[in-house]
Parts: sequence; C-alpha cells; structure tokens
Amino acid sequence: MAETVRVGVYGASGYTGSELLRILLRHPNVSISALTADRKAGQQMKDVFPQFTGVDLPVLTTITEVDPHKLDVVFCALPHGTTQHVVADLMMQRPELKIVDLSADFRLENPEEYARWYGHAHEALDQQKEAVYGLTELYREKIKGTRLLANPGCHSGTSIIPMVPLLKAGIVDADNIVIDSKTGMSGAGRGASEGMLFSEVAEGTHAYGVGKHRHTSELDQEFSKAAGRPVFASFTPHLLPMIRGIYATIYLRTLGGAKPEDLHRVLADAYAGETFIQILPFGQVPQSRHVKGSNNCQLGVIADRMDGRAIVISTTDNLMKGASGQAVQNFNLMCGFDEATALAGPALFP
Amino acid sequence: MAETVRVGVYGASGYTGSELLRILLRHPNVSISALTADRKAGQQMKDVFPQFTGVDLPVLTTITEVDPHKLDVVFCALPHGTTQHVVADLMMQRPELKIVDLSADFRLENPEEYARWYGHAHEALDQQKEAVYGLTELYREKIKGTRLLANPGCHSGTSIIPMVPLLKAGIVDADNIVIDSKTGMSGAGRGASEGMLFSEVAEGTHAYGVGKHRHTSELDQEFSKAAGRPVFASFTPHLLPMIRGIYATIYLRTLGGAKPEDLHRVLADAYAGETFIQILPFGQVPQSRHVKGSNNCQLGVIADRMDGRAIVISTTDNLMKGASGQAVQNFNLMCGFDEATALAGPALFP
Amino acid sequence: MAETVRVGVYGASGYTGSELLRILLRHPNVSISALTADRKAGQQMKDVFPQFTGVDLPVLTTITEVDPHKLDVVFCALPHGTTQHVVADLMMQRPELKIVDLSADFRLENPEEYARWYGHAHEALDQQKEAVYGLTELYREKIKGTRLLANPGCHSGTSIIPMVPLLKAGIVDADNIVIDSKTGMSGAGRGASEGMLFSEVAEGTHAYGVGKHRHTSELDQEFSKAAGRPVFASFTPHLLPMIRGIYATIYLRTLGGAKPEDLHRVLADAYAGETFIQILPFGQVPQSRHVKGSNNCQLGVIADRMDGRAIVISTTDNLMKGASGQAVQNFNLMCGFDEATALAGPALFP
Amino acid sequence: MAETVRVGVYGASGYTGSELLRILLRHPNVSISALTADRKAGQQMKDVFPQFTGVDLPVLTTITEVDPHKLDVVFCALPHGTTQHVVADLMMQRPELKIVDLSADFRLENPEEYARWYGHAHEALDQQKEAVYGLTELYREKIKGTRLLANPGCHSGTSIIPMVPLLKAGIVDADNIVIDSKTGMSGAGRGASEGMLFSEVAEGTHAYGVGKHRHTSELDQEFSKAAGRPVFASFTPHLLPMIRGIYATIYLRTLGGAKPEDLHRVLADAYAGETFIQILPFGQVPQSRHVKGSNNCQLGVIADRMDGRAIVISTTDNLMKGASGQAVQNFNLMCGFDEATALAGPALFP
Repeated sequence: MAETVRVGVYGASGYTGSELLRILLRHPNVSISALTADRKAGQQMKDVFPQFTGVDLPVLTTITEVDPHKLDVVFCALPHGTTQHVVADLMMQRPELKIVDLSADFRLENPEEYARWYGHAHEALDQQKEAVYGLTELYREKIKGTRLLANPGCHSGTSIIPMVPLLKAGIVDADNIVIDSKTGMSGAGRGASEGMLFSEVAEGTHAYGVGKHRHTSELDQEFSKAAGRPVFASFTPHLLPMIRGIYATIYLRTLGGAKPEDLHRVLADAYAGETFIQILPFGQVPQSRHVKGSNNCQLGVIADRMDGRAIVISTTDNLMKGASGQAVQNFNLMCGFDEATALAGPALFP
Repeated sequence: MAETVRVGVYGASGYTGSELLRILLRHPNVSISALTADRKAGQQMKDVFPQFTGVDLPVLTTITEVDPHKLDVVFCALPHGTTQHVVADLMMQRPELKIVDLSADFRLENPEEYARWYGHAHEALDQQKEAVYGLTELYREKIKGTRLLANPGCHSGTSIIPMVPLLKAGIVDADNIVIDSKTGMSGAGRGASEGMLFSEVAEGTHAYGVGKHRHTSELDQEFSKAAGRPVFASFTPHLLPMIRGIYATIYLRTLGGAKPEDLHRVLADAYAGETFIQILPFGQVPQSRHVKGSNNCQLGVIADRMDGRAIVISTTDNLMKGASGQAVQNFNLMCGFDEATALAGPALFP
Repeated sequence: MAETVRVGVYGASGYTGSELLRILLRHPNVSISALTADRKAGQQMKDVFPQFTGVDLPVLTTITEVDPHKLDVVFCALPHGTTQHVVADLMMQRPELKIVDLSADFRLENPEEYARWYGHAHEALDQQKEAVYGLTELYREKIKGTRLLANPGCHSGTSIIPMVPLLKAGIVDADNIVIDSKTGMSGAGRGASEGMLFSEVAEGTHAYGVGKHRHTSELDQEFSKAAGRPVFASFTPHLLPMIRGIYATIYLRTLGGAKPEDLHRVLADAYAGETFIQILPFGQVPQSRHVKGSNNCQLGVIADRMDGRAIVISTTDNLMKGASGQAVQNFNLMCGFDEATALAGPALFP
Repeated sequence: MAETVRVGVYGASGYTGSELLRILLRHPNVSISALTADRKAGQQMKDVFPQFTGVDLPVLTTITEVDPHKLDVVFCALPHGTTQHVVADLMMQRPELKIVDLSADFRLENPEEYARWYGHAHEALDQQKEAVYGLTELYREKIKGTRLLANPGCHSGTSIIPMVPLLKAGIVDADNIVIDSKTGMSGAGRGASEGMLFSEVAEGTHAYGVGKHRHTSELDQEFSKAAGRPVFASFTPHLLPMIRGIYATIYLRTLGGAKPEDLHRVLADAYAGETFIQILPFGQVPQSRHVKGSNNCQLGVIADRMDGRAIVISTTDNLMKGASGQAVQNFNLMCGFDEATALAGPALFP
C-alpha cells in the first residue's frame, strides 16, 4: 500500500469521530481527505469542535458529496442501522476500499442474534460475512486481511480481553460470570437528552440497560467461542460522573482448584509482548484514570477472601481502546503499518 | 424522657460529625451541649466548617473536658479502636447515658470475628454485649430499649436492607450473592491523603479493599442470621468521583422457580409503611442522586435476560441513611421521639 | 391569613419547581394544591423527579386545568415571556391571589429597559406596575404588602446584596465595578441541549453571555437606585463544572480614602440581624460549597495589595437564595409567616 | 548538539514531573537518563504513577545519586526555595548543562522583588542573572541562547500572552486591568492537604491568595516592561472543581477610542504564525476544555455593552502551556530542535 493513505471519517461531528481525528493527526501516513456530518455539513470542524482551531482540515460534507474513489480507507462513526446501508454501498461502489466500522452493525456473526438484539433484520448480509471482529489482540491475523472491520463495543472489548484467555484455559466457571461494568458519560454520545445533562448525572450514579444491554450480545459471542459452548454472563453497565473510562469488575469462580494466581498467570502469558495490554502485579487494583486518553488496557487479578473465588478487573478509555484507538490499531494492521503508530503512550493523568 | 435532651457530639470535626449537627439543628427536642474534636479543641465549629457561620454552638473541646453528667445522649463519631475505650469509660461514669456509636467498634456480636477483621482483640467486651446493631427497620424494638447503639457501616446497611428479607424468604441462593458497591468520596473521611486529592480521584474510578473490605463482616453477620446458616457474599466496594452516595448492585440467583417479580413483592411487603425505604416500581432503576442529602433508601428489582437471575439495586446517602441520618433515626427511637423527627424529606436534587 | 395556605406551583417539572417543592414540603402552613407542567401533564411528580417517590402530591396538570379560585398563592416557575400572560390572566381572574414569579418578566421597573434587554415589548404593563422586586433584605416592607413579587435573578441577587449598601454609603467608585460571576450548571435549566451535556461541560469552564447577559439589567436598576445616578457595572458570568452555586468576585476601587475594612463595616452594619446573610471575618474568603442547599448568602471582604482597591465576594446557592429559597422567603413575608419558615439551616457540606 | 540528548527530570513524582515524562516519551531526540524523587527514591515510576506501567524507565533516585556529567539537560520540577541551591550546584559542577526550571526561583529579575514576594533573600544571585524568562513567544531568541530557563507560572503565562501585545500597542488602560483567573486543582500539586480533598473541593469554588498571589509578581514584571512604566494589575485566582485548565477573564478599558475589534487585530498580528496560540474569531468565547492536554493557548476578544470596555479571555492547560508543555517548548529551542516536537496536536476533548 502507498506510503500515505487517504482517509475519510464518516460521522466526524460525534465524539468517536473527533477522537479519530485527534489520533490520525499524529499519524505520519495519513491524509485526512473527507469528513462527513450530515446535519452539520458546510461547517468547519473547528465550529463543531473548537479544539481543532488552527488545524487545516476539509470542510464537513454530507456522505453523498464524498467520492469514495478518492479514498483508500473509511472510518464509519455513524449510528447503527444507518451504517449497514452506507457500508454496503461503499463496498459495491469501490471494492478496494478498506472500512473500519465503529458501529454495532457488523459485530455479530449470527444474523439471528443481530435481529434479536437490535430489533430488525440485518440488511447487509453479504457484507456481514466478510466482517472481522476487531479485537486486535485476539484476531490479529484475520484483521490484516479484511476489508471490513467491525470494531468492538466499549463495554464488550474491555471484558472480552480478560475473559477469553481465562475461558480458553478452562479455569473459571463459565456459568458463573458476573460483570459489573462502569463507564464515563462520553460513551452516551453527543446527542442532546435531558438524562445526560450535567445537572442530571454529576454527583451520582445509576445502572442502565440492566439485564439487556446490547453489548451483552458481543460477550455471548466471544465468550461462547472461547469456552466452546454457550456462555451467558451476567452483565450490568453503570454511568459514572466522569467523561471517559470503562471499568469492568468481574466476579469469577475458579475450576479444578485453580487459584487467583493461576488466573493472573494465564493473562500474563496470553498478553506477553502486547503493547497496549498491561497486566498489573498480582493483587494490584487498576484505576480507570491511569488509562485515560491512552489506548491501553490495564488488567488486575485479586484474590477473594474465600477460596475458589477471584476478582478480575479490566479498564480502558471508552473512546480509545474502547472505540477510536482500537479502530486505528486495526487500521494500522489493515494497511500494513506498525500497529502502534499514532497510538503509543501513557495516559493523561492527572 | 425530658422534652429536650442534652446531646454531645464526640468527633464533630469530621464529616459524620458535621452531618449530625446539620440534622440535629433541625430537631425540636435537642440541645447541642458539647462538641469535641481533640486536635481542633479551642476552635469554633465555624472555623472548621464555615457553613455553621452564624449558628450559636459550643466551642470545640477535648473529650476529657466534657462532663458526661451534663449530657443525656452522646453521638460517637470517633475512629474505630479509640471508640471502645471512650464508650466503656462513658458507660461506667454515667450509666444513664445513651450512646449512639457511628464507629465499627460494637457492630460485630462475635468478638472473634471482630479480632479477625480488625486485627486486635476487642477491649470492651462487657459493653459489646449490650450493643444493638442499629439497622432501624430490622431491629426497631431492640433499639428502643438499648443504651448502646452500634450504627451500621454505610456499605453494609445499604446491602442489608434488601438482602435480609430476601434471605429470610428463602427465595435467593445464599451461596451465590455478588454485591458490587459504589461510594462517593466523603465515605473516605476528612483525613488528608494523597489518594483522596481531587486530582487523584476525579475523572476515574477504582475498586478498593477488594476481597477483604471490613464492611463484609457485617454482611456475613446479618446475612447469616437471616438465612439461618453461614453466608459469605462476594463484596467489592468502589470509589466514584462524587461526594455522596452508596449504590449497591446485587446479582442474585433465584430459588424454587421464583421470579424477579417475586423478589419485588417480598421487598414491598417487608418495607410497607416504612418512611425511609422506597420500593420503586418493578423494573425501575434507582439513581444515587435521588437520595442525596436525605435519609431515604431507594430499592429497585430488575429482571435479567436469563430466567433464574435477578438484579437488586439499593441506594442511600452514605452520610445520611449510611451514617448520621441512620444514627438520628435510632436516637429518636431511643429517646421516644417520632422516628422521622428532623429527618423526613426528599433528596437535594439536582 | 388562614393557618394553611393553598399553594400552586406552575412549572413544577423544572429545577426551580422541584426545589420549591422540596422546601414547601417542610413548611407547616402550606398545602400543595396544584402542580403544573404542560408538556408532562398527566404524569406524577415522582416520574419526573424520582426523589419524590413516596410523597403524596397532586398529579401534574396543564395550567388551564387549574382553578385559581382554589389557590391562595401561586409560584410561577415558567419561562420568561410566557409568564407575563399567565400572571395577567391570574390577576384578573382572581385578584385576591398572591403571586411569586421566578421568571424575569416583572423584574425591570422600566418597560423600555425590558424591551431593550428582552427583545420585545412588555405585554402586561398594568401588572408590572404592582410588582415588587423581591430582594427581601432590601425591600422587606414593600414585599409584605404586594400581591405580585418579582423574584430576582440568581446572578443579580448575589451581587446586589453586597453592592447596594456599599453604593449607598458612597465609599466605592460606581464607575469602576467589575463583577466576575460563576455559576453551577443547574442555573441553565433542564432543557436538553448539546452544550449542557456532562461530557461538554465537566472538566472545564467558559464565560457566556459576555458583555450582554440579561441579569446585567437588574444590576443596572438596583445599583443606579442605590447610587442615585446611572451605574453600568462590568459583568461576566461563567459556567463551572458543579451543579449548584453562584460565586461573584467583585473588584472595587474605594473612594475618599476608604479602606477595605470600612467596606466590611458597612456590610456588617447593613446586614446585622439578618438570618440568611453572613458576613465572614475581614479577610476570610467565602466558598460556594458552604452555602450549597441552604438559603444563605456568605459575604467576604478582602484587601488588595494596592491601597484603594478591595475585593468583595458574595456566594449563594442559585436554586435557593438565587431562586426558590428566596421565593419562599418572600412568600413567608407576603403571607405573614416567620420569614425563615422552612428555610433555616446550614449548607449540605460536604 | 547531538541527535539524542540525555535528560534528567528532578522531581519526577509530582504532576509537572509526570507530565514532562508523558511528553518526553514522544520525543524522538530524548533519552530519559535520570529521574529523581527524594522521598520516593528506590521506587519505580509505575509505583508512583501507574500509567507508566510497561514503560522502561530509570528507577527513582535522590538528587545526590545523579551524576550530572551524564546528563545534557535537567528539568527541575522541585519546590521553590530548594531549587535555587540545586540549580546553583548543577551549574557550578557542570557548566555545559542546560537547565529548564519549572519552579518560581528564577522568574523575577529583580532580587528585591523576589525577597518581597517569597519572604527570603535570593541565594543564587549569580545564576539569577543568566536566567531567561521562558514565555517562548515573547523571548524566543534569548531562550535559544540560554543555559538557565525560568519557566513561567501557570496563571502568569496565561495572562501575559494576551496582555503584553496590548500593553505594547498602548491601546488599553494599564491602570485599569482586572484579571479574574480560574484554575483546575492539579495546579495545587500532589501534596496531601485537607483543603484539596475531593470532598472539600468538588461541587464548589473559591478564590485563594486573594490580593497577594505570588504569580502577580510575574505579571507586574512583564506588564511593566511591555508598558514601559509600572503596572499593577488586579489579579485574583480561583480554584475550580476540574483537574486541568487555566481560564483568565481580563477586563479592560480601551484608550484613544480603540474598539474591541482593534484589540483583536493587535493579538492576531502579534501571534500570526504561532503554532500554539490560536486567536478565535472576534466575539467567540474560549473554553478551557478545548485546550486540555494540549500545549495550546486559545484567546478570545469580546465587546462589552459599553463603549470603551472589552473582555479578553485566555485559556491554557496549567500542566502543559502552563508548565511542562511550555518547558519542553523551551527545551526544544535550547537544543536546536523544532519548537513543536512532541507537543503539537489538539486537546483531549471530551
């Protein structure tokens, strides 16, 4: 592939869109060639996100104004449902295009599961078959060869990273997984709603999507593949009064006399050499702020007071490893660049 | 008892102390007669907490400067360990005194459990025998007759309220309880430490005391009593970037084909008529901000996507129903006042 | 007036409405007889504000459904512009009614000023003539006799309290007043807008309405009356990442060799005996959190390093002394109750 | 100078230290050769700041353990007072060393001013004479040639950037400058103190150092130089419940009939071509969050309702352009690197 790739960001006026841009501006092999935002077409990026004042960028346009033949890669940061039509069109118009999709549309391999969780039949089934689930550390080789990448959900990826090696190793009870996940508000997006106002969500917390959050479907898919049989974890997400961060506290029962230290060893082995996954020393508790603004995932394993129980904690930045950072990591692989290009570095803390 | 009781607050310069004062200033039958704060003795309350500017209050003194014979009731908001000596002395010096203790010193009935969790032998065993665990809704009658009240821990009380009726009813699996609890920072107290600085804890979250938090011992005691056999729940507390609030997300398995709706019914029946406990309609998710600044506990029961599983959520204000509000509720009973005196009213929201 | 007054709250689904209710529920002489919220008519208050779960309240209705003859007092917490028509109708239908208006509609005595600042002619001029500006400490006697009370704006009241005595005393330069005011987000109301989302406003600050905020018109009116000549202060409000609080930092030049200590004395004299205004010792800096949730205003006077300059700081809770608390204080006077009924007490801190 | 410079960070366990490290890890010409933290000597950086887990760094040592002959550049992020001795020693031991000092010790050219503001005589007067005040955009040429750089205070730099061109142009009244500055909590550092606890500072604001904050002395120095005569602005800093950000609202009177638009033009001309200073369109209000985590300074000029008055707003990230980013910008110049190396890029927003 060429030294410089021409990139389009579809849906640039949302938080994952602006975060993609923040990362890509550091990327030595990227030329930002198109930015779309249907409702804000005609505006400059700096009007929508003043942090880009002084940065030379294309004006925002509608999707239909973009000529995909002038692009090598498209990042889709559009709402689910809409996305599958946009992607199908793009792939038919320009088969050479590589697409990194941040929506939920191509994450589920089984269209029946998609229909069940999203409430309508999938309408781009042919394209779906090509999609690769973009948890880089698990599917690195497949990702290198795909032209359609389905970037994981923020809650999903954060829990899949620790759980897949543990389930593959067969040392935790797959029928007894409880995941209590917490997220910052930016995961709720930029659409104005009463429930997301500062005065409504600061100084308090609450669970949402209890017992039925859609990211659960990704957990089912990946956990079941790892365990080799159906797995249906308990999963409850919570909104916290902070902007960024996913923090999954996972309650496990060990099998065959395995100790918490054994879980730690499995994770350390599975992710040895990974740039973006850090296994903390056994017993050390991660903090979401220590990955804020970075593409890192920090994992901790802690013993419970009772034998046979362990707590595993995984934390990421929902806009980075949970969305745009993960997307660029996949993009790097798809384009033959070093996987960490434009992504390496520690959190912004404090 | 007399129309007006003379009250001393021991440890008035901490958050539970100032919160006691905030409540008691509204109480028509209370005269604030002594305020202690050993390290700040000689100062005015308004120097320590400027919100009391303009309020006529006794100057802060050391404990030894107080004559307990001039008091009818003492609220002890002192560190654990210290408290047991202070309480033993007070009870010997002035047997008629009523004591509401907000520390952990008298919460555990079994001194061996105390020694195991707190790392040293209990040194006021005689007094311990008299202590009543002050979860008002569970032990109302005993509380009326005691002179030593052990006020529950904030995490403990918040989880005990929903769990005791469910365990008594025998409709949830006592061997499979996971409690993921979240708290605001005020629960960590007013002692200066790097880890509690704004810049360290805003914009992020983390678990603490994982697998071994001391409030777990209160859960063991009360859950086991309710179930009639030993119960050892999984319990992990988290610090959230908010000042007040406890939010316990409880993951349960039902027994004997019980449905989540049955759990809701058990709780609604158990707490019918209670002033400070509100059962939300089935499926409604509580929010900690809706109890902030109030003595209320709001409970929600939500179905999981899988049969046989349910999520129960309980939320309180850690300084109110989780500490000082609960303490005054007990005080009211102990003194023969209406239980809700100085306590009724909705949250400060937003 | 009767022992119990029948109160209607018009616009009960906004923040000033819910705050009125929180206060009035504590009031021994109030019966909540009507609650309106046009767009949420038919809902229960607890559906709109779950903190009222368990409280017995009238269902929300439209304004037209209310029979004003069944009310003694109406609190109007409606948008400006709309309000003047509602008030005019009410006063014609039921002349005995007392009205406390929290909107901006009746605050400006000069209709031309109203037209200039609000962009349209005033349409209830007859009623305007009766309105009394409801800064209790300044207009107590007039307030007792009025049936139409115009409750001050939150920024305005907070700055008027310290400035009026100083201007009357003639010891500060009326041509050189700079007011840098800061407010929590609840002042922006509950209407959903992108700019008020948590992710947009947490972790940052910005000025708004710079050079032209409408509350300036109230400052002009009251400052000019106090000084006996036109005064046009510089005034810039800022949004801070907190829910409640107004914090006005006022930069002054003294006249005639007056010292900062003299300013302090003027304020101490002016507000001696006031329940809700506390003058901190000279040099002590107020903090907005020390009035949060209370009806208090705390004032500080601090010397600058240069002779002839002083800094005066005033802080209130924008929903209390800045809106609903101030409204109830006025209501108490208008109904002949003790001014502090349902309002006394220190801040919720921490 | 060599392709790679060997850098020591003295005081690496504070916030400016960790921020320096975050930036320098991206710098292609830097080798981190020494990290000191006297009280945490022997620990790893990841023990003190877990965001550095997985990054290969020297262990923390005491200053005396470092051999300055193995370093080319030292960043001093030590407390004021201490620093002057450390710097004097370093310069005597190793004259070739370049030093970027982030403390206040060498910022004031006049030792009498230093003594007056800091309460003790300066004890490194010889070195003081060599120091260059490191506001890059004002002193670029001098900075290139110095071996001792005095990095500006966070409040100071943020206000000096807009004020110096305006004062030089003579279009604002130098006797009538009011600067109301706001800062996030990270500016207060990492030392544990009650007043900086989350529960003490969240949900509220307050001024500090009123009338006498030490950064004022830097304003006096730079403003007076620019105006060609003594200037003593009014300056009051405030603590806001956010981690990062300086936001200076500056109230000005124009001279000679100058309009606010003229001020805007002066600033646009003065900073045309600067990488890190962005002049927003006339009338647009900056927000601190739009520079968070970046080295940018955004400036706005807004008209007041009254002729002859204007509001100028300047915002930076206190740890970046206000400290460590500014320091690296100076370091780049001192070492002959491109000024923006490791620093370019937009804010982390949201």
